[in-house]
Amino acid sequence: MCGVFGIFNHAEAANLAYLGLHALQHRGQESAGVVSNDRGTLHAVRHMGHVADVFTQSRLEHLPGRLAVGHVRYTTAGGSLPKNIQPLTVEYRSGAVAIGHNGNLVNAESLREELESEGSIFYTNSDTEVVLQLMARSQERDWVDNLFAALGRLRGAYSIVMTSGERLVAARDPHGFRPLILGKIRGEHSHSRYGKTAWVVASETCAFDLIDAEVVRDVEPGEILVIDGDGLRSSRLKPQPRRFCVFEHVYFARPDSVLDQTAVYEARVHMGRALARECPADADVVIPVPDSGVVAALGFAKEADLPFEMGLIRNHYVGRTFIEPKESIRHFGVKLKLNALPNLLAGKRVVVVDDSIVRGTTSRKIVKMIRQAGAKEVHVRISSPPVSSPCYYGIDTPTRSELIASTYSIDETSRFIEADSLGYLSPEGLLDAVRLAQPERPKRPVLADEEDPGFDADYCSACFTGRYPVPMGSVPRRQLRLIEV
Amino acid sequence: MCGVFGIFNHAEAANLAYLGLHALQHRGQESAGVVSNDRGTLHAVRHMGHVADVFTQSRLEHLPGRLAVGHVRYTTAGGSLPKNIQPLTVEYRSGAVAIGHNGNLVNAESLREELESEGSIFYTNSDTEVVLQLMARSQERDWVDNLFAALGRLRGAYSIVMTSGERLVAARDPHGFRPLILGKIRGEHSHSRYGKTAWVVASETCAFDLIDAEVVRDVEPGEILVIDGDGLRSSRLKPQPRRFCVFEHVYFARPDSVLDQTAVYEARVHMGRALARECPADADVVIPVPDSGVVAALGFAKEADLPFEMGLIRNHYVGRTFIEPKESIRHFGVKLKLNALPNLLAGKRVVVVDDSIVRGTTSRKIVKMIRQAGAKEVHVRISSPPVSSPCYYGIDTPTRSELIASTYSIDETSRFIEADSLGYLSPEGLLDAVRLAQPERPKRPVLADEEDPGFDADYCSACFTGRYPVPMGSVPRRQLRLIEV
Amino acid sequence: MCGVFGIFNHAEAANLAYLGLHALQHRGQESAGVVSNDRGTLHAVRHMGHVADVFTQSRLEHLPGRLAVGHVRYTTAGGSLPKNIQPLTVEYRSGAVAIGHNGNLVNAESLREELESEGSIFYTNSDTEVVLQLMARSQERDWVDNLFAALGRLRGAYSIVMTSGERLVAARDPHGFRPLILGKIRGEHSHSRYGKTAWVVASETCAFDLIDAEVVRDVEPGEILVIDGDGLRSSRLKPQPRRFCVFEHVYFARPDSVLDQTAVYEARVHMGRALARECPADADVVIPVPDSGVVAALGFAKEADLPFEMGLIRNHYVGRTFIEPKESIRHFGVKLKLNALPNLLAGKRVVVVDDSIVRGTTSRKIVKMIRQAGAKEVHVRISSPPVSSPCYYGIDTPTRSELIASTYSIDETSRFIEADSLGYLSPEGLLDAVRLAQPERPKRPVLADEEDPGFDADYCSACFTGRYPVPMGSVPRRQLRLIEV
Amino acid sequence: MCGVFGIFNHAEAANLAYLGLHALQHRGQESAGVVSNDRGTLHAVRHMGHVADVFTQSRLEHLPGRLAVGHVRYTTAGGSLPKNIQPLTVEYRSGAVAIGHNGNLVNAESLREELESEGSIFYTNSDTEVVLQLMARSQERDWVDNLFAALGRLRGAYSIVMTSGERLVAARDPHGFRPLILGKIRGEHSHSRYGKTAWVVASETCAFDLIDAEVVRDVEPGEILVIDGDGLRSSRLKPQPRRFCVFEHVYFARPDSVLDQTAVYEARVHMGRALARECPADADVVIPVPDSGVVAALGFAKEADLPFEMGLIRNHYVGRTFIEPKESIRHFGVKLKLNALPNLLAGKRVVVVDDSIVRGTTSRKIVKMIRQAGAKEVHVRISSPPVSSPCYYGIDTPTRSELIASTYSIDETSRFIEADSLGYLSPEGLLDAVRLAQPERPKRPVLADEEDPGFDADYCSACFTGRYPVPMGSVPRRQLRLIEV
Repeated sequence: MCGVFGIFNHAEAANLAYLGLHALQHRGQESAGVVSNDRGTLHAVRHMGHVADVFTQSRLEHLPGRLAVGHVRYTTAGGSLPKNIQPLTVEYRSGAVAIGHNGNLVNAESLREELESEGSIFYTNSDTEVVLQLMARSQERDWVDNLFAALGRLRGAYSIVMTSGERLVAARDPHGFRPLILGKIRGEHSHSRYGKTAWVVASETCAFDLIDAEVVRDVEPGEILVIDGDGLRSSRLKPQPRRFCVFEHVYFARPDSVLDQTAVYEARVHMGRALARECPADADVVIPVPDSGVVAALGFAKEADLPFEMGLIRNHYVGRTFIEPKESIRHFGVKLKLNALPNLLAGKRVVVVDDSIVRGTTSRKIVKMIRQAGAKEVHVRISSPPVSSPCYYGIDTPTRSELIASTYSIDETSRFIEADSLGYLSPEGLLDAVRLAQPERPKRPVLADEEDPGFDADYCSACFTGRYPVPMGSVPRRQLRLIEV
Repeated sequence: MCGVFGIFNHAEAANLAYLGLHALQHRGQESAGVVSNDRGTLHAVRHMGHVADVFTQSRLEHLPGRLAVGHVRYTTAGGSLPKNIQPLTVEYRSGAVAIGHNGNLVNAESLREELESEGSIFYTNSDTEVVLQLMARSQERDWVDNLFAALGRLRGAYSIVMTSGERLVAARDPHGFRPLILGKIRGEHSHSRYGKTAWVVASETCAFDLIDAEVVRDVEPGEILVIDGDGLRSSRLKPQPRRFCVFEHVYFARPDSVLDQTAVYEARVHMGRALARECPADADVVIPVPDSGVVAALGFAKEADLPFEMGLIRNHYVGRTFIEPKESIRHFGVKLKLNALPNLLAGKRVVVVDDSIVRGTTSRKIVKMIRQAGAKEVHVRISSPPVSSPCYYGIDTPTRSELIASTYSIDETSRFIEADSLGYLSPEGLLDAVRLAQPERPKRPVLADEEDPGFDADYCSACFTGRYPVPMGSVPRRQLRLIEV
Repeated sequence: MCGVFGIFNHAEAANLAYLGLHALQHRGQESAGVVSNDRGTLHAVRHMGHVADVFTQSRLEHLPGRLAVGHVRYTTAGGSLPKNIQPLTVEYRSGAVAIGHNGNLVNAESLREELESEGSIFYTNSDTEVVLQLMARSQERDWVDNLFAALGRLRGAYSIVMTSGERLVAARDPHGFRPLILGKIRGEHSHSRYGKTAWVVASETCAFDLIDAEVVRDVEPGEILVIDGDGLRSSRLKPQPRRFCVFEHVYFARPDSVLDQTAVYEARVHMGRALARECPADADVVIPVPDSGVVAALGFAKEADLPFEMGLIRNHYVGRTFIEPKESIRHFGVKLKLNALPNLLAGKRVVVVDDSIVRGTTSRKIVKMIRQAGAKEVHVRISSPPVSSPCYYGIDTPTRSELIASTYSIDETSRFIEADSLGYLSPEGLLDAVRLAQPERPKRPVLADEEDPGFDADYCSACFTGRYPVPMGSVPRRQLRLIEV
Repeated sequence: MCGVFGIFNHAEAANLAYLGLHALQHRGQESAGVVSNDRGTLHAVRHMGHVADVFTQSRLEHLPGRLAVGHVRYTTAGGSLPKNIQPLTVEYRSGAVAIGHNGNLVNAESLREELESEGSIFYTNSDTEVVLQLMARSQERDWVDNLFAALGRLRGAYSIVMTSGERLVAARDPHGFRPLILGKIRGEHSHSRYGKTAWVVASETCAFDLIDAEVVRDVEPGEILVIDGDGLRSSRLKPQPRRFCVFEHVYFARPDSVLDQTAVYEARVHMGRALARECPADADVVIPVPDSGVVAALGFAKEADLPFEMGLIRNHYVGRTFIEPKESIRHFGVKLKLNALPNLLAGKRVVVVDDSIVRGTTSRKIVKMIRQAGAKEVHVRISSPPVSSPCYYGIDTPTRSELIASTYSIDETSRFIEADSLGYLSPEGLLDAVRLAQPERPKRPVLADEEDPGFDADYCSACFTGRYPVPMGSVPRRQLRLIEV
């Protein structure tokens, strides 16, 4: 998963990009980068690590200019190589260009094959490089035209920020899998050759809150925004059915963000409430798996009229390096992060709410931990349906065979995690909950659109349903042939 | 503030010390150290930084032996010098010794003057070095006897772990200001020349939970535990009135810890409940300042029968380095950590619960942030009394003049932070709440003991009351004369 | 300037590449890299800094395989960017490939323009990337055929090592500007699927001495060696007049190397002798500017029958970082490296021998330093002609305007450096001296060949004569548009 | 071995200390430190590593004040612990004090026992700490009086620089084992509260040359210089026979230094000349083992009227880390540093001159290397007598059993190193040579003084003769009980 940020026409462009990435840190902790644009010359700072470690004062001082793009990265395609750190930068016929990409292209491998057969060389293992190569192959003189040509070839998920010349571009794939929001900086700090307005784009609105920017609107699926001294212009790719990622609302996005007009916090409360209706439990207390389960657990407790307690305490100081667990220390991995409170749980029938179950091993440890704290019964409630299929659109899920829900029934999963009961929110319940968090609340969600029967009108739920709106290319992923230490 | 950990007779002593410190990380983020003891030879790893960064795999492999002591540190006395990183180690007549200290000695300066006049040299600015110098001055041959002699001279707060020879010692000052708990490792991993039992001591029980140790009991105020191949022996210093730090329960300790038989989580729930009774508010929603205000806010919401919501979202990725806020970015410092949710707060009368107010500047920014999110009214509720006096016993409070409550009335403070109302928990309410979280719940707290009229029988509340159970020495703190870059 | 190394079929390929680069460290101190090849998968370690710092034990352990190529780099083209560190690696149609390049292409800019116009993107500012892009554009299936096609387009200086698949390739430009030698590892450590022989190539023979390899022969100008399991095959590009760089013998190469059958040490002795004959001095003592002037000074002293002394002592601990000289410390820059001995020089007429004068500022400081040590007269003797023209073939000389000899006569230079006299070796004397260090010593050097009247038959002396055997392309070097911090 | 530097009353005190240490880098490469003194407050920068790496621009900016002391260290006593890095700093009754020490105390262990029995604690394993503890035990109020008292207790070798209050002190042991020189900064940069003169002290004069200071005179054996705003005062400890270390002249000091009025370069020339007279060889060429054998080899060649050549080339880029030699690479350790030139040596009878033989293993590898380069005969000549006894006065020689000359005769050593002949300079020849490099040249050295028959009047030659002017204490060195990772 990744987060992107772009800013146009601000005296502190790189500083604000740094802050924006800080707010987007939850979207990628492996590497971070900002490329600033000073009248056409690009300046890059990109390193492995967290935003706060990558951007020292002295490095930020080396990023001049009123434009900047930034990226936080958690490996999806490409592996954990230093040279894959984004924003990627290259020079080609139309000049120097920087790109930050959130998403995953399903036809990257076949495009790469085609490009290689035509004489392209690849420095990275990232699908993002394909976008740049396609741009370079396009015959137009202007880089934005090159980008249009390139985007026409891409299939899959992308929310992109780019800069070159003295322009900022933001683009979102026609399905709108990944979020992308347009904002404006409050205040009047922006009188310059580029006009009076400081524009920003980011993966989530929480990035705007930190820098006192206001939300203008979502970048629409298939929309390409070109921002320069002449203002902001919008163009569209060929329309496709909307396929917003519902998992952003379940887990990925920050609860204080609003994506595609949906307030994430409220959506999660509604998920918890719906879960309590769909899968009630005879219990004494509701506790979340912090932090991701907190909001849904609040909703569950309200709907079920049960007391809510923080029965698991999370240690936020978990660092990047830790020693391997010895067998003598049970449930070690989970214990580094979580601890159960016997005083709250002993003798109780406990409902524990989490956002999802992936492999099942963590849930199993959590159930055991709650039981060891003295709980009489442990009822696991999940605020989304079983994750049975890998995501091809940018979320870093394991392969199908590792997903417990791909081979275990709910009953089998319940036994595996040693819960007294296990309940998941239904796909319909999930989509209802998300829609309830939108300003105008439709009474009934549209469950399919005309073009794609079997799909929801707005949301991609492929990880729960296995129905992929854009099929994965058939070309097998190549083995890594270049390894950097 | 600091955290200490000690372990005796375990094959993975240094690894468990590392994990114990990980669980105590909230008690000190400036530096971390472990000294292992391999049949009398001490091996030290001590560095500035977080536990997860200090202890790499390869460094841990350099810490052999079945005994270890560890320390996490947040500067109280001594300043931020590399050489002040604990555990301190020295050699003296009785051998090599390592010490980790949580607390603050009120007579350190006068003891240092005395020791210097007798020919001692000091390498550090830490009051902990005084303990070692006093030991070295004692004429007994055995280091534990030296320690007894030294402790007899100390006044103030200390919870100490030490190792030398093939022994582990844990000691707690006669008032018991700072917590210290004794535990035992579950299981049978400990057959060795040192017997069958693996003993542990730690500042809080959460360190035991992570390593699957069980709580045996609190180390008593004035108790010195000597643990070696002959078992565990307990001795006592001259008894003094108990003065457990009540602020550990308000803020410092982790909510999943149990200190001096008091469950911190429960105590905080009771603080919130009492606060709701003492300072009710006509409101629509209760929100905490996360993370420290969460549990008290849950208590407040329950008692007041108001909805509880996570109306402020905390970003846990705040790193150690960040750029200075420019004036153009309002409330920058707080925004790096917290963000308010307009969807939850707009048009609402909001109660926001925090554990304490120190300077008032952060509270002021939080109130503003909540108001900007659209709240109609903001009622600040604090789950402890006003902090009006600095702590001399190990908590890193600012000087009196910086404490808003030392010069402002509650009304003045309320206006300063621009709240619609401000309410603090009373000292009595606080002590009641703490006692309600103890196993046998006394109906009425004893408000004073015979020897010290005006003091609570068990707790030090000097930061709220200005009544210091052990007066600060009159010798002025010397200027720093040694500075290390 | 740069150094390259390649090895085929040795169990310790990466270790020996590391050692080879260590011996070639004088050819480039800015960055170092090794790419090993394990049955077709490439593994890279590349960092800024000295060889001894870049290659830690643990990094070397991440370089498996029986093939490796290595590179040390001192910026010529491309600027000091991390991503320019060689060997460069890319993937293209024919697989993953690594290249290390010593030299400079005079038509790199025009090739880049052409490639960009055809849709290539460039990650680096290095002319080496042009080679890879040309390879990718070639339609053959085999990467060695691609390389042949690419080399046919290049003009200028290159000695190249490459690996891909399970082959090692070494190539040298048709003029042979930069050295490249073929060797074989002594002993029988090499029984493997690749045969019995372990082949090595390196910029200088000193790299072979360190790893106990024996010299086989020079790679010939225009020769391409392909080494794989089928043995070693040699191909030729279209023949061109030989243009060995004479400055390698004057300064760049290590004195213990033998390049193009010329022993560098002997050549320098002959330069000193010829210099003594051409520019004698009435003097008492001959001293070198260490280390580069030592051997020529020995030759000068012998021929002139004057005592040789180490009158300037060099501090070899000069690191990469040092504080800026204040004006109060005279000749600071030179003093960090050199110190003059008054005991040896006081009252003496001193001949000081250096290899060349570039800007003149260092020579001026050295003359002053010798005078301050008490010398009565200072006669500067240079073992090569005046450097009046920049090198376009891989040596990092300053621009023409900075070269003192481009605007000052010898007399003017002598006055500028405040010498009592200044003498340079003549171009003829230099070429004679080099030829005297070859096994069969031709009585008279051929001063021109048939195709290129005005050029020496074997050597490029463009830096002294301004006569460039391969003209620099007319396309102006572009401004840097991508800057990495 | 170590180097010390001190400076009083200069606006750039820390910068000049850094430069002085740079010039003294050859005396210790393990760690480096500078402590500046800003009106009584000490500021320290001390780290493991080379001078150029330890002192970054930003660290130097944290060293204010007009006084500074500096130290470079190569472990003698105390082991390679970060906390042993000098200058050591402590606080005691008289204030904060910093000390840098070159030498070794023979009674450190017994003094430490005594101090520990009186209640001292030790932070380091360094004998230097003993000096500070003795000072603290002295009852005088003034730190310089404390130092006098302490020095009275020390036996062995010490050249010391210290600062405290607003004074700089330099002291040298009564025998004068280690050098220490007094200088003055040229120019008029020093008008300040401390007067007009900027004083400097350093282990060698080469440190003065770099910073444009002039030599005033040697600090005399037993002299203590106190420098403050009142000027420079000299005091004396009880006189003892002079015991200048002769090995400084043989090997340790830089050839451009003048120590105790002896020009090191000239002394080495005379050693080489005497060696040629004492141990002539029928040979064709004389070559040095660079760099330490160069000057003596020049002397040998002159006296023997043989050609001098640089037949071994040294690679100065040898870093701190390198991989372990595999057996397949012969004489690996030496080859990293040295390479022999077959063109110069083939078929020749070679005299190779080195300064000393310690274990014999390196010499053996060098002889082999010269022979492999084709030499017909290899005659090893050593410009000092056989090193048969360890040094107790600050030079880091191995234990007696590792010294080849302690068990092998010269013939046996010659066979071990596989030389055709081996010759050492006689003790008398060595002392003669040193005296010939002094301004007034006594015709015959005094071989003994009245008090110590069997000793030279001026020089300690214990490493050659086993006659120790100050016996080593009998207390065995304790095992290390504190290990820092």
